[in-house]
Amino acid sequence: MKAMVYYGANDIRFEEKPKAQIIEPGDAVVRMIKTTICGTDLGIWKGKNPEVAAGRILGHEGIGIVEEVGSAVKNIKKGDKVIVSCVSKCCSCDYCKEQMYSHCRNGGWILGYMIDGTQAEYVRTPYADNSLIVLPENVNEEVALLLSDALPTAHEIGVQYGDVRPGDTVFIAGAGPVGMSVLLAAQLYSPSAIIVCDMDENRLKLAKELGATHTVNPISDNVAEKVFEIAGKDGVDVAIEAVGVPATWDVCQDVVKAGGNIAVVGVHGTKVDFNLEKLWIKNLKITTGLVNSNTTEMLMRAIATSSVDYTKMMTHHFKFSELEQAYDVFKHAAEHNAMKVVLAFE
Amino acid sequence: MKAMVYYGANDIRFEEKPKAQIIEPGDAVVRMIKTTICGTDLGIWKGKNPEVAAGRILGHEGIGIVEEVGSAVKNIKKGDKVIVSCVSKCCSCDYCKEQMYSHCRNGGWILGYMIDGTQAEYVRTPYADNSLIVLPENVNEEVALLLSDALPTAHEIGVQYGDVRPGDTVFIAGAGPVGMSVLLAAQLYSPSAIIVCDMDENRLKLAKELGATHTVNPISDNVAEKVFEIAGKDGVDVAIEAVGVPATWDVCQDVVKAGGNIAVVGVHGTKVDFNLEKLWIKNLKITTGLVNSNTTEMLMRAIATSSVDYTKMMTHHFKFSELEQAYDVFKHAAEHNAMKVVLAFE
Amino acid sequence: MKAMVYYGANDIRFEEKPKAQIIEPGDAVVRMIKTTICGTDLGIWKGKNPEVAAGRILGHEGIGIVEEVGSAVKNIKKGDKVIVSCVSKCCSCDYCKEQMYSHCRNGGWILGYMIDGTQAEYVRTPYADNSLIVLPENVNEEVALLLSDALPTAHEIGVQYGDVRPGDTVFIAGAGPVGMSVLLAAQLYSPSAIIVCDMDENRLKLAKELGATHTVNPISDNVAEKVFEIAGKDGVDVAIEAVGVPATWDVCQDVVKAGGNIAVVGVHGTKVDFNLEKLWIKNLKITTGLVNSNTTEMLMRAIATSSVDYTKMMTHHFKFSELEQAYDVFKHAAEHNAMKVVLAFE
Amino acid sequence: MKAMVYYGANDIRFEEKPKAQIIEPGDAVVRMIKTTICGTDLGIWKGKNPEVAAGRILGHEGIGIVEEVGSAVKNIKKGDKVIVSCVSKCCSCDYCKEQMYSHCRNGGWILGYMIDGTQAEYVRTPYADNSLIVLPENVNEEVALLLSDALPTAHEIGVQYGDVRPGDTVFIAGAGPVGMSVLLAAQLYSPSAIIVCDMDENRLKLAKELGATHTVNPISDNVAEKVFEIAGKDGVDVAIEAVGVPATWDVCQDVVKAGGNIAVVGVHGTKVDFNLEKLWIKNLKITTGLVNSNTTEMLMRAIATSSVDYTKMMTHHFKFSELEQAYDVFKHAAEHNAMKVVLAFE
Repeated sequence: MKAMVYYGANDIRFEEKPKAQIIEPGDAVVRMIKTTICGTDLGIWKGKNPEVAAGRILGHEGIGIVEEVGSAVKNIKKGDKVIVSCVSKCCSCDYCKEQMYSHCRNGGWILGYMIDGTQAEYVRTPYADNSLIVLPENVNEEVALLLSDALPTAHEIGVQYGDVRPGDTVFIAGAGPVGMSVLLAAQLYSPSAIIVCDMDENRLKLAKELGATHTVNPISDNVAEKVFEIAGKDGVDVAIEAVGVPATWDVCQDVVKAGGNIAVVGVHGTKVDFNLEKLWIKNLKITTGLVNSNTTEMLMRAIATSSVDYTKMMTHHFKFSELEQAYDVFKHAAEHNAMKVVLAFE
Repeated sequence: MKAMVYYGANDIRFEEKPKAQIIEPGDAVVRMIKTTICGTDLGIWKGKNPEVAAGRILGHEGIGIVEEVGSAVKNIKKGDKVIVSCVSKCCSCDYCKEQMYSHCRNGGWILGYMIDGTQAEYVRTPYADNSLIVLPENVNEEVALLLSDALPTAHEIGVQYGDVRPGDTVFIAGAGPVGMSVLLAAQLYSPSAIIVCDMDENRLKLAKELGATHTVNPISDNVAEKVFEIAGKDGVDVAIEAVGVPATWDVCQDVVKAGGNIAVVGVHGTKVDFNLEKLWIKNLKITTGLVNSNTTEMLMRAIATSSVDYTKMMTHHFKFSELEQAYDVFKHAAEHNAMKVVLAFE
Repeated sequence: MKAMVYYGANDIRFEEKPKAQIIEPGDAVVRMIKTTICGTDLGIWKGKNPEVAAGRILGHEGIGIVEEVGSAVKNIKKGDKVIVSCVSKCCSCDYCKEQMYSHCRNGGWILGYMIDGTQAEYVRTPYADNSLIVLPENVNEEVALLLSDALPTAHEIGVQYGDVRPGDTVFIAGAGPVGMSVLLAAQLYSPSAIIVCDMDENRLKLAKELGATHTVNPISDNVAEKVFEIAGKDGVDVAIEAVGVPATWDVCQDVVKAGGNIAVVGVHGTKVDFNLEKLWIKNLKITTGLVNSNTTEMLMRAIATSSVDYTKMMTHHFKFSELEQAYDVFKHAAEHNAMKVVLAFE
Repeated sequence: MKAMVYYGANDIRFEEKPKAQIIEPGDAVVRMIKTTICGTDLGIWKGKNPEVAAGRILGHEGIGIVEEVGSAVKNIKKGDKVIVSCVSKCCSCDYCKEQMYSHCRNGGWILGYMIDGTQAEYVRTPYADNSLIVLPENVNEEVALLLSDALPTAHEIGVQYGDVRPGDTVFIAGAGPVGMSVLLAAQLYSPSAIIVCDMDENRLKLAKELGATHTVNPISDNVAEKVFEIAGKDGVDVAIEAVGVPATWDVCQDVVKAGGNIAVVGVHGTKVDFNLEKLWIKNLKITTGLVNSNTTEMLMRAIATSSVDYTKMMTHHFKFSELEQAYDVFKHAAEHNAMKVVLAFE
C-alpha cells in the first residue's frame, strides 16, 4: 500500500509499504477514506521528534471503513464506517480509569508516532473497541475528519479545561487549525465575545466567518489594550493559548481577568516566564494537556445541529496520491491561505 | 399611583394606591417602564396563596428607572435603567452566603407576595444593590422582562440543575412560559435534540420556531414511545418538568435514561408517585427549586449574541392601564394563543 | 469445587460444582481466600429475583489469588492477590465510557446473579483487567472484603452523590451493612455531625463505635424532632437512605434542609410518595443508583490511614465449609447481633 | 487605645491612637480579645508594601466582642463574640456575586493594609454583617484565631483549588504558618500521604505531630527523588506551594503527576520559570489566589470534630502589651522555634 513514511529530519517519503495487519486480538485494520495533515506531522518532518523511528508511517487523523477486526473486538465490526481517534485507549490502566486516556500506559498518542499511522491506504488501530468511533451517515465526512484530533483537542484542553460558560468573554491566541477549532468548540457554550488573535489577516477573516466576534492582529494592534477595550479593563474570563510559543503565553497572562482561566493548548518547545509576582493574587486557573478524546461522541452529536459551517475549515482538497503536494501546501500554509487539507483516497 | 391589588380569592382590583416609598436605607424606588404577569400571579388571584395579605400589590417582574435610592445603596443610582429581579437578596444570611438567594432569610421571593410588587407605577425594592440589575442600552426591553424571573428560573432550576451538556437529548414537559424559557435557555449549551411536550398545538408550533427539534402531544401521541423513537430506547439525558402536576412528573420518570437527570421546575400542589422500585438502580439525579437569580447577568450577556428571537415569547402587548384586560387574556391563554403579555407604562 | 447454588425461592444448596474455567480471552479464574454474604444474596434466596437461573452460584464479594488468566488479560497475572469487584466492566460500551460501569452493556452486576459468583472455591471473572483490583500486602484482608461492594456502594451512591462536605450535618437512615458503610465513608470528608437512625439498639451502639456523633431510634424517638434538635430546625445538609423501604425514604424527605441532598442507596421494591408540594421549593438534589465501583482504589488508599477500626464491621467469622451456618446467622442478623460475616477458605 | 502603627520601612511603633469608631452604617467596632501576627505584617514592616500609608494600624486577624454596630447592621449585635475575617466583603459588587470576595471592589484585604487593623484594642470592621463570624462557645479561642486568615487561606487556595481527594498523595512545599495550615486543612479530605518539605527540622517535627505522613528536607534530601520513592515515580496528585519563592515553585513543577494539580498559596515577589516544554502534555491544573474566606464557617464546623490538636500551631503566648516582643520573636521564628504567636488583650 502507499504511505507517507518518516526517515529522519526533513526526510519523509511517499512510498510503497506492506499492508497493515492485525497483530493483537483487540486490533482492527481500517481502509482509509479520508485523512489530513496535522501541525504535529510537520513537526516530526522538521525533526522535532527524534524519538520517532525511521520507517514510521505518519498521520493520526482520518476516517475509513473497517476491513478486519481481531478476535477480541466486540463493538466494532467489518464494514463499519469509523473515525480513527488520534488517541488509542486500553481503558484498563490507572490513567484510563480516570479518563486520562492521553496518558494511557499502553496507548495514548501512538498513531503515526510510535506505531504506523493513518497517512496510508490501511492502518492498524489498537484497542479498536475503545479507539474507533462509528460514524453515522448524517455526519459530514470532512467534519468527521476534524473529530480525530483538532476538535476534541480544542474542546477538551481549550474549552472544557478553560471552563467557557454562557456570557463569558474568551480570548484565543492563534488562529491555526487548533485555535480555529477552539473558536468552533467555544461556541457550543454561548460566550458573549470571542476575540481571536493572529498575525495572518486571512486567518482572522476566516475566524470572523466561523464565529469570532472580534479579531486582533499584533502587527497592527496593541493586543492587551484592544482586549481591554472589548472585554473591559479587567480582562477576559478565559484566555486560550493555541500556538505554543512564549509570546502567545505572555499575552494570555496579560489579558486574563482575576478569577479567570488560562488554557494552554499549544505544544511548547521551551519554558516560559510565569509572572507570579502579579498573578499569585489573581485567583487564576491555568491548565495544560494532551487530548483525551473522551468527548468525541459528544461533539459529534452537538455539531450535528450547529448553524456554523465547519467545512470552511477545509481549505484545500487533494487525492491521496497527491499527498506530497498537500504536505507542501500545508507547510506553506500562509502563502496558500491554507487551514486544513483533505486527502481523499480513491 | 395605579396598581393591581389582591383582596382575596378571585378578588383583585386595579385601583389607586399611595406611591411606593423608601423604608430601609438599602431600598430603592423604581418607576416602572414595563411589567408582565406570571402564572404565580394567576395562582394568587385564584386563591392558592391564602398567606398573601389583603391589600397587597401583585407582580414580581419588570424593568424601570430608578427614582430614588436609600442612604446605604452604593451600586445603583437615580436614573439607572434596571431589571427588577423577582428575588430580593440580603447577601448576608447563611443561605445567601451559599448563593441560595431563593431562601434568603430576609428576602427571597417577597415582591408581589409578602411586600408590594411591580404591577404598579412605582415599586419599592429592598436590598437594591443586590436585587436590581443595570440594563445596558443594547438589551431589548422585552427580552429584559424575561430576565426578571422566567429565564433565570428556566436556566438555573431547569438547565443548570438538569446539567444540560452539548450533544444531550432533552425532554421538556410543558410549553408554557417556563417550559418555553427552558427551551430557550437549554440552547445555550448546544444539546443535540430538544423534545417539547404539550397538549396545545399552538404552543408546540411556537416551540418549533423557538428551537425545539421535536414536539410531542399527549393527546395524539404515546409520549414515552415517541421519545424513545427520537432519543433511543434508553431515553433522554435530561427531562425537565415545567408544569407542576403529577402527569408531567410521571412522563419525566418514564423517559429519563440511566445516568440522566430530572429537573423539576414546576410549582407542585400535591405529592407525586416516585417509582423507586424501577428508579433506585438508574443512577438518576432529581432536582427541585426556586430561582436564585444568580445567573441573570450571565444570561443577559449570553442572550446578546443569540440567533434565536426571544421576543416571540411576547405574544400580547397592552398599556398598563389595560392591565385588567391583560389578566383576562393571560388567564385564558390557550384561547388567546398567549404566552407572555407585555404591559407598557405610559 | 464446593459452592452455594440457587435453585429457586427458599432453595439454596451448598454442593459440589465443576471448577470455574476461563471462557473469554479477557477472563480470569480466581481461587477465593475470603468471601462474605450480602443482603442481596438473602433477597435472591427469598425469591425476590426470579430472573436468577436455577443452578446459579451466588456471591459477588471476595478476595482471592489469581489462578489463571485469559489470553487478552494484560494487567493481572497468575498469583496476584486481588479484590473481586461486584461490578464487571467491559470499559468499551457507551455507559462505561461515561464511568457508569453499573450499567455496562456487557457486564455490570452479573456475578452471583447472571453468571456464577464468589461463594465458591473458584470464580470466573470477566473483563479481569478492569474488574479485579490488586490488593497490596498492607491492606487488611477483612477490610478488603468490604471493598468488593459495601464500601464503594456507600461511598459512591451515598457519600459522593450526596455530596458530603467538611462541616456538613449528615443523617443516615438505617444501620445495616450498607448504612454502616455510609457512616465509614462519610467520615473521609469530615462532616461535623453524623446522625444514624435504626430500630436495633445493638446496631446503634456499633454505629457510635464506628464514628456516629448521634443516634436515633424511631421506636423511642420522634426522629425528625430529634434531628432538628441536633442539626438545627432547618434540618440536615445530607440525608442518606440506606434501607430501601418507604418509611426510611419518608424520614429523609422530612429532615433534609433547603439546598440539601437526599441520596438513595437502598434497593427499593415499591414506589414511594414524593412530597413535591413541599419540596418543589427546597432546591434539593435527590439521587439514586447502583455502585460503579470506580472509587475502589481511591477508598483502598484512603482507608489505609484511617483511625477508625473498619474490622469492627466483621462481627462473625466462619470457615467456608460452614457457609450454611453463616447464611443462617446473617438471615437472623438482629438476634445474632450480626453485621458482616467473614467466610475464610481453607 | 494602644495599637501597632506603621510609619515606613523598618519603622513600626506601638503607640497610643484614638479609639476606633463607626464611620459607615454597615460598620461594627470590635473590642479585641486575641490577635496574632501574620507573615504579611512582617512584610509591611520590612517595607515590601510602600503603598501602605504612614500611620496605619497593622493586623488583619483576631477575635473580639462587638462593642457597637452601625445603623444598617442586621446579623451582628453588640456583645457578640466574633472572628474578624481578614477579608471585608461588600457582597454586592460583581466579584462578590461570584464569591470572589478576595477581589471585592469595595473591600477585600483592606484591614491593617488600606484601613486600620486588628493589632489594637479596638478595630472598625466594614460590612460587618458579611465580614464578622459569630463564634460559638465550643470553639477554642486560639483555633478561632487561625480562622481569620491562615486556615481559610490554606483550605481555599491550597486544598480546594488543589482539589485534594480521599486517597491522594499531597506534597506541601513549606512548613510555615500557611504550609502548616495546609497540612491541617488537607486532612479534612483524607489523603493517603502528606509529604511536608522544609529546611527547618523543628518545623518538620511539628508537621509530623500535626499529621504529616512524611517529611523531606532539601538540605539533606534530593526532594524530588524522595517524593518519587514515597508517592511513586509519576509523582504526587497535588503539590501545594506555600512559601512564595522560585525554588518552592520549581520543586512543585518537578514532583506533580500527569493529571495532577499545583496550588500556589505563597505570596510571590518575582516571576518564575514555567517549564511548559515538559508540562504542556501533562494535563495539569495550576491555581493561584488570595483567600475569599467563604469557607470560614465550614471550617469552624469541621474542625470541631477533628482529632488533630490545632492549638499546637500556637507556639508562643504574649500579653497585648508585649506586642513588640512578640514581633521580635515572630521575626526570628526559626531561632525561637515559633509558628504562630498569640496576643491576649487584658
